[in-house]
Amino acid sequence: MGGDFAPAEIVAGARRAVDEWGLEVLLVGVPERLGDPGGLEVVACSEVIEMGDDPAASVRRKKDSSLVRAAELVRDGRASAMVSAGNTGATMASALLRMGRLPGVVRPCIATPLPNPGTTPTLLVDAGANAECTAEMLGQFAQMAAAVVRTHYGVDRPRVGLLSIGEEPSKGTPLVKEAHHLLSSLEGFEFAGNVEGRDLIPSPVDVVVTDGFTGNVALKTLEGALNFVFSTVLAAIDTDESTRAAGRVLLAPLGPTVARLTPENQGGAMLLGLKGICVISHGSSNATAIMNALRVAAEMDREGVVTTLRDTIRPDQKE
Amino acid sequence: MGGDFAPAEIVAGARRAVDEWGLEVLLVGVPERLGDPGGLEVVACSEVIEMGDDPAASVRRKKDSSLVRAAELVRDGRASAMVSAGNTGATMASALLRMGRLPGVVRPCIATPLPNPGTTPTLLVDAGANAECTAEMLGQFAQMAAAVVRTHYGVDRPRVGLLSIGEEPSKGTPLVKEAHHLLSSLEGFEFAGNVEGRDLIPSPVDVVVTDGFTGNVALKTLEGALNFVFSTVLAAIDTDESTRAAGRVLLAPLGPTVARLTPENQGGAMLLGLKGICVISHGSSNATAIMNALRVAAEMDREGVVTTLRDTIRPDQKE
Repeated sequence: MGGDFAPAEIVAGARRAVDEWGLEVLLVGVPERLGDPGGLEVVACSEVIEMGDDPAASVRRKKDSSLVRAAELVRDGRASAMVSAGNTGATMASALLRMGRLPGVVRPCIATPLPNPGTTPTLLVDAGANAECTAEMLGQFAQMAAAVVRTHYGVDRPRVGLLSIGEEPSKGTPLVKEAHHLLSSLEGFEFAGNVEGRDLIPSPVDVVVTDGFTGNVALKTLEGALNFVFSTVLAAIDTDESTRAAGRVLLAPLGPTVARLTPENQGGAMLLGLKGICVISHGSSNATAIMNALRVAAEMDREGVVTTLRDTIRPDQKE
Repeated sequence: MGGDFAPAEIVAGARRAVDEWGLEVLLVGVPERLGDPGGLEVVACSEVIEMGDDPAASVRRKKDSSLVRAAELVRDGRASAMVSAGNTGATMASALLRMGRLPGVVRPCIATPLPNPGTTPTLLVDAGANAECTAEMLGQFAQMAAAVVRTHYGVDRPRVGLLSIGEEPSKGTPLVKEAHHLLSSLEGFEFAGNVEGRDLIPSPVDVVVTDGFTGNVALKTLEGALNFVFSTVLAAIDTDESTRAAGRVLLAPLGPTVARLTPENQGGAMLLGLKGICVISHGSSNATAIMNALRVAAEMDREGVVTTLRDTIRPDQKE
């Protein structure tokens, strides 16, 4: 029920994931608003958390909403994962409250893949779940993201960079300095030291760790800059016949990069640290984006990501 | 003496500013390292603060460095402004320690112009001077940047946005929420509420205010994304004869935007809140960038920006 193009594009994406990859998809929604479910099974609910609703309050109040019901399907073992393009805060709150945190996890985080030309993506954590973080949280985000990079992208020894405003360990806020010290001592990845905003795309590391405020600002800055340049180039190409012809010539060498940068091919962000899988798709998701988000969710299930993260963050690590 | 292409490009840029605009430029540097000063007056010094030097310590120790001496020329009224492409932290420290803060200013900030297609640039404050900020500091940054937007870009009633992770006043860190409240009550600009990373380019506001950590990450993310796309497009254009021909066709409609986005045309960042003018040019500055930074510094002097900022931040406003 969520996202700018729901429910039509969501249903179409689910249908394509079934047809092309044989995934089993349950649609959770209000039947009379859902339209034709394309032959997919519908788990009916009576409420919808809208994009503008307060996340925590709406999850408490709208107990029969599609987001809460989807999280319950995962909790109850009726689904292996949930995917949503709706209210991000409410998606997180539903997943957190219904699935629960893994033992020892202080707070779940959002891991957003950033494309790198010619190699595996870089995970940006936290991309917006926690505006305020402690160094301990950043340490766990790094460990969880590194574990996912290993299982999901097959990178043996992930390199982790800490987002700051200079390469020296002395640069940044007190939180960043403390996190720098902590990350140097943790296992499960190679700590590459501080990285900067210009190291996000392309990135020299597999994981960029930061608090959810900085991460969300950086992610949206990146998206905004790419959107701006692409729309500028597309407008230039559309000037007249000769520029349209020139655009067609350039599309061949540019195609792979453009495809890689297109959000709909990236499959959405992963919510890490819960007793279940939740993939958060962009609010502007079309059918292709949803199809890819479902693929990522299915892969995470097949890879046993929850078990991996459970083993990564052992409660005895904490005190 | 500072910057990746010093001293040759710095001297060349100064020479062009003299030739094209009739500015009077003093070169501050170590004569034997400076090379041919192109007929410009050289204020000789014996030391250089290098890019990797610790800012505060080097300004204390290297009292006869080009940065410290340049700041003293402004303090002593021998120069109207200083321009540097060197160690940013040391440039700020020199200017702060030698020129001093304007009465009532808690901390100076860096205002970096972000280009907007078809209209005046947006000032991002603080772009990196202060990793840690209070709401009061953000309020002053907004007031100072708004005053500069008014005098320098001729915008009558500047719109100020607060960088956050959602439009609602409830979004963000405690600092952002407190600053949101404070900005609503200040005079001298129209507070447009929270803006997000995607609102940096193009921007719906004239000033984006944030702490120096977030601002620096956002600025470098923006630069990195634009560099990445431009280098990708240029590589695609350079594939073969047909793509090079296509590139030439597209350059006509794309030219103005590319020119606007090119850092060397933007003239550098302004250090605001001191009893003198300091323009910080990018470390990668070539002669054109230096020439434009000198132009901006001269304009700020002609516009009386220091007097304007003195009147903007009155000590009695504080506490």
